[in-house]
Amino acid sequence: MTKRPNERKKPIVGVDAMGGDFAPVSEVEGALLAREAFPDIDIVLVGRRGEIEKTLGDREAFTVHHAEDVVEMHEAPVQAVRSKPDSSLVRGMRLLKEREIDAFVSAGNTGATLAAGAFVLGRTPGVERPTMGSVIPTIKGVTMIFDVGAAVDSKANHLVSYAAMGSVYFREILGVDNPSIALLSVGEERSKGSEAVKAAYELLEQSDLNFIGNVEGRDVLSAKANVVVCDGFTGNILLKFAESIPAFLKDTLRGFAETGFLNKLKAGFMAPTLKKMFNQLNYEEHGGVPLLGVDGVAIIGHGSGSPKAVANMIRRAKEMVEADVVRKISDAAKRYEQQESA
Amino acid sequence: MTKRPNERKKPIVGVDAMGGDFAPVSEVEGALLAREAFPDIDIVLVGRRGEIEKTLGDREAFTVHHAEDVVEMHEAPVQAVRSKPDSSLVRGMRLLKEREIDAFVSAGNTGATLAAGAFVLGRTPGVERPTMGSVIPTIKGVTMIFDVGAAVDSKANHLVSYAAMGSVYFREILGVDNPSIALLSVGEERSKGSEAVKAAYELLEQSDLNFIGNVEGRDVLSAKANVVVCDGFTGNILLKFAESIPAFLKDTLRGFAETGFLNKLKAGFMAPTLKKMFNQLNYEEHGGVPLLGVDGVAIIGHGSGSPKAVANMIRRAKEMVEADVVRKISDAAKRYEQQESA
Repeated sequence: MTKRPNERKKPIVGVDAMGGDFAPVSEVEGALLAREAFPDIDIVLVGRRGEIEKTLGDREAFTVHHAEDVVEMHEAPVQAVRSKPDSSLVRGMRLLKEREIDAFVSAGNTGATLAAGAFVLGRTPGVERPTMGSVIPTIKGVTMIFDVGAAVDSKANHLVSYAAMGSVYFREILGVDNPSIALLSVGEERSKGSEAVKAAYELLEQSDLNFIGNVEGRDVLSAKANVVVCDGFTGNILLKFAESIPAFLKDTLRGFAETGFLNKLKAGFMAPTLKKMFNQLNYEEHGGVPLLGVDGVAIIGHGSGSPKAVANMIRRAKEMVEADVVRKISDAAKRYEQQESA
Repeated sequence: MTKRPNERKKPIVGVDAMGGDFAPVSEVEGALLAREAFPDIDIVLVGRRGEIEKTLGDREAFTVHHAEDVVEMHEAPVQAVRSKPDSSLVRGMRLLKEREIDAFVSAGNTGATLAAGAFVLGRTPGVERPTMGSVIPTIKGVTMIFDVGAAVDSKANHLVSYAAMGSVYFREILGVDNPSIALLSVGEERSKGSEAVKAAYELLEQSDLNFIGNVEGRDVLSAKANVVVCDGFTGNILLKFAESIPAFLKDTLRGFAETGFLNKLKAGFMAPTLKKMFNQLNYEEHGGVPLLGVDGVAIIGHGSGSPKAVANMIRRAKEMVEADVVRKISDAAKRYEQQESA
């Protein structure tokens, strides 16, 4: 049996080898990149042993936990998790629950990964509802949005809880001392927004978080706040919209190049510079989205993730284990609960 | 008294001269631009006569309907409309209700304009809830999002109604025969999204609209659908985010220029081309957002609108009057209601 965390020297990161549009290729190649870059962790691949070994070929083997089943991208999350206990996803989460591994990353079905995290790991003590957060890289700094899809609708206390967890993550993983927190709404005034947003405004104002008020959609890219809080439906749509901007720029440049020979030359000159400029918008650099508030380090990636994206997820998982983020979120949640009921 | 629509030759467009961050300057200057560009309409300015005439100076006068009061940008919409019957906003909507004018445009407090439209004009027969729609210009075509802030939350039948109205607007004003309709959600599968979105999916599938299913945030800029339907909270945030992209690009280019002399040269060379490329993303070109489902042509602009933006709102109002969009939306809504209950 694998050693318990306190007995072993290297953190063990589990990888869902079957999750993602290009699984297991992206996952195995990503694990190889990560093994080379981070010799201070161990990596365990979870999934179909045969497919993993075939992809690996004659390269040095990984520890593999065989799981026969696969949760497909299109499956209804809750049903998939319930009906496929032998999937790589559910098996991986169980390994994490049993502390056979210290973190688990999956680029598969986002909803199912979230559901498996919630069902198998359970919530961190003190947290009412887990959340997924994602980085929006901007020229002026880094903003993170919570929630980006853990729950499609959110009450005021959920929004406040996302704020508290986001604040811990930002401080511990992104190194900002007193992260600023804002609510995403349809106007800066406290009177603007849904009932949940308006009620969360009141609660956040009374909290010890560094709450700066509402921000609007136009403020996200100017990094007005470190942590931007919204319901998961809005956050998911905004995140995916933001991710589509680099491809949009590429298409726009291509369209421009087709408008004449001189413009083709100009576009050819501009393309590499633009690419360099907007590389910072590339979500693959940012290591997936952390699932916060569950009792373990779990990272959810994009289904279309490249090997590089998978490697960055593994790196982020390692950082979260090292920073003891799960315990710190639990502490913050408990403090906040006490403040709430005080 | 002004002639009724059927007796007069030129449509009359009313302009809220006091609405907007730079009122009445942007409004008066915008009206001047529009008067020059569209000699086939009459323009009426609604607001403080003294301030309007001072801004106009010795240029040819407009017809002015004096209104002493002003709804400020930060006021709570419903309360402002109720407590300020003599505001330019409420007076303008009343002129439209009484058919003294054929359309009314305001770049003031969005929520108050919407509230004034709903209270004063009332709903177009057959429509349950009005909606605001906005253009998202893309390289591959034009997409419109409904709703972008008329109501912060929406039930399934509201979403369906936005789809029906958006379809009419797209056909009549943007000239697309059988506009494609999509629901904005957190996944393409019918199982993805809020309860309202999932129920709207079923209803739209049964409708005679050209429904193509769910699209995600990443699909908006690739114009997968002509009309993208969502609740007003999500739509407002997405729209404002999209509007912030040109400024973001400018900042990014400026940051790049500061990284060295050669990069400064490159940026200087690229700036005008980028500006030209992304002019299409400039919302000022697109004439504000139409308020559909109210019994009259009402256009809501951005508070930060320039004279050009105001002029484009006036042009759009003229087009909506000429295309008889209000009657056509009523017809569509009634047809849809019949289909619903059949």
